[in-house]
Amino acid sequence: MTVLVLTCEADVTADMVVAELHQQGVPLVRFDPGDLPGGAALSVEYVRGEFRGYLSSGGRVASMQGLRSVWIRRPSEPAAHAPEPSDWLSVESAHALYGMLDCTRARWMNHPSAAAKARRKPWQMRIAYLSGFPVPATLLTTHPTMARQFAEQYRQVVVKSVSGKSPGDPPMALPTTLVPPDADFSAVAAAPTLLQRYVAKRADIRLTSVGDRHFAARKAAEPGQVDGRFGDTGHEWQPVEVPAQIARAVETYKKHTELTYGAFDFAEDSTGTWWFLECNQGGQFGFVELETGQPIARTVASWLGAEPS
Amino acid sequence: MTVLVLTCEADVTADMVVAELHQQGVPLVRFDPGDLPGGAALSVEYVRGEFRGYLSSGGRVASMQGLRSVWIRRPSEPAAHAPEPSDWLSVESAHALYGMLDCTRARWMNHPSAAAKARRKPWQMRIAYLSGFPVPATLLTTHPTMARQFAEQYRQVVVKSVSGKSPGDPPMALPTTLVPPDADFSAVAAAPTLLQRYVAKRADIRLTSVGDRHFAARKAAEPGQVDGRFGDTGHEWQPVEVPAQIARAVETYKKHTELTYGAFDFAEDSTGTWWFLECNQGGQFGFVELETGQPIARTVASWLGAEPS
Repeated sequence: MTVLVLTCEADVTADMVVAELHQQGVPLVRFDPGDLPGGAALSVEYVRGEFRGYLSSGGRVASMQGLRSVWIRRPSEPAAHAPEPSDWLSVESAHALYGMLDCTRARWMNHPSAAAKARRKPWQMRIAYLSGFPVPATLLTTHPTMARQFAEQYRQVVVKSVSGKSPGDPPMALPTTLVPPDADFSAVAAAPTLLQRYVAKRADIRLTSVGDRHFAARKAAEPGQVDGRFGDTGHEWQPVEVPAQIARAVETYKKHTELTYGAFDFAEDSTGTWWFLECNQGGQFGFVELETGQPIARTVASWLGAEPS
Repeated sequence: MTVLVLTCEADVTADMVVAELHQQGVPLVRFDPGDLPGGAALSVEYVRGEFRGYLSSGGRVASMQGLRSVWIRRPSEPAAHAPEPSDWLSVESAHALYGMLDCTRARWMNHPSAAAKARRKPWQMRIAYLSGFPVPATLLTTHPTMARQFAEQYRQVVVKSVSGKSPGDPPMALPTTLVPPDADFSAVAAAPTLLQRYVAKRADIRLTSVGDRHFAARKAAEPGQVDGRFGDTGHEWQPVEVPAQIARAVETYKKHTELTYGAFDFAEDSTGTWWFLECNQGGQFGFVELETGQPIARTVASWLGAEPS
């Protein structure tokens, strides 16, 4: 039974998991959808109810009948490296690849449908609340008046990207930014804008959840610091215990979203409360593992390599 | 309780359903995601677990708390008609719109996640077989040798688009085409290619399934005709009874795919067997209704307007 790792060539985090899989003696195929067709190939037959086929890349073959699990890390767009790339070829190749993988009994980390839905921040806010997390008051609007009222009511608010994507090509990171209450909100009419009450925090929390194991890390924050992902604060990520009610909320959230992996960001306030900020279904874990020594890559490998039940 | 109809301005099929909803006295808002932001607006607040908000367009307002159902017909891409359109704005607007709609209790025809997955033909083949439909032998491959062997084995095979999309801009319809067994298969290496055993048919069948009601129509085929969707054959669509085992298979298929609407295409062979060709989750029904008089638009309206249980 083979593990299929869908990712691009230069992916250090995937390298960490692949090394663990090798160490655990689990067969794997690393496959970049961008190489299909061209460097990679597929073939699958549906005859009288039988479904048989394989993917191949770099001399390695993954049989569809013998697929244990699929890990979607950082795959290139299908057909991105094809000899004659086109939008149409990408769509055809994506339907072929993900359609045939959907016919298998493989476990997914994460399934593309679950991942697509879980990326939507407005839905995250709702599911997080229903799962039992404290969630800061949030507004999503195209009305400048509503935005101004929200900012006046909560005094300190931050603005975020709704989709988590960044404008521009090449994309630029868009840090969460504090908005002064007397800001000019007229531009809100030009794009749906997500405003959130600012949580005055004493630490950032990153919780990485892999199957039923949760690794939390804490990094002390300077007063007034907004987005802990950017800039050097002089503090490092330290392992921290996961409170029982947070673990329960994480499990409820993942069950509802059908995610098997999630990177949760929280702001810890002065009372010690962890406020839910977001859950990134494909969030990085390499930087946390390096600073905390938490065995996340090994846990991902164990999840992927587990025998089918 | 309001019905939300997501579609573009020029959509005759939507007009038919909207007229039925008016007749049934069901409040509705017709909304084109392409008008957001600009002609249309949204605002939604998440405060202490409460989720409140609305969409508005053309002076009509749909409250998120009072949403009965959402019908996705032919929506433009979000932000397509915005004053300053961009890929980024489309992604942000899509996440805002579909993310907030996912927070409601509305019933969907069809939910975007179910629709995206159900479009993949390789998965359709598998689910159709598991649901109990007869499915013609099918091959999906990038290997010219495999394609040639398949064509030699089945003698008469057709080639189809994997995704149902067509190459070119503006897109051109890509009819299913008969492939001679001595064809040059080398181009198969350039794109994943879907080949299927040709079913010698005496009729095309279109079955439109709306909730738990199924409408089948039959159009006699000329000998050797391949794709009944193109060209005038001199025959018209006639209503035909749905065999009980087909109805059961349709229900199983829709349950598995989480579709509430589907347009199924079959080829009826000389023995009367209906061979599954595909299920289009957003397939047209206007042309069938016009020729057969089957009340499909009214049934869609009734499904959308049903009181929440």
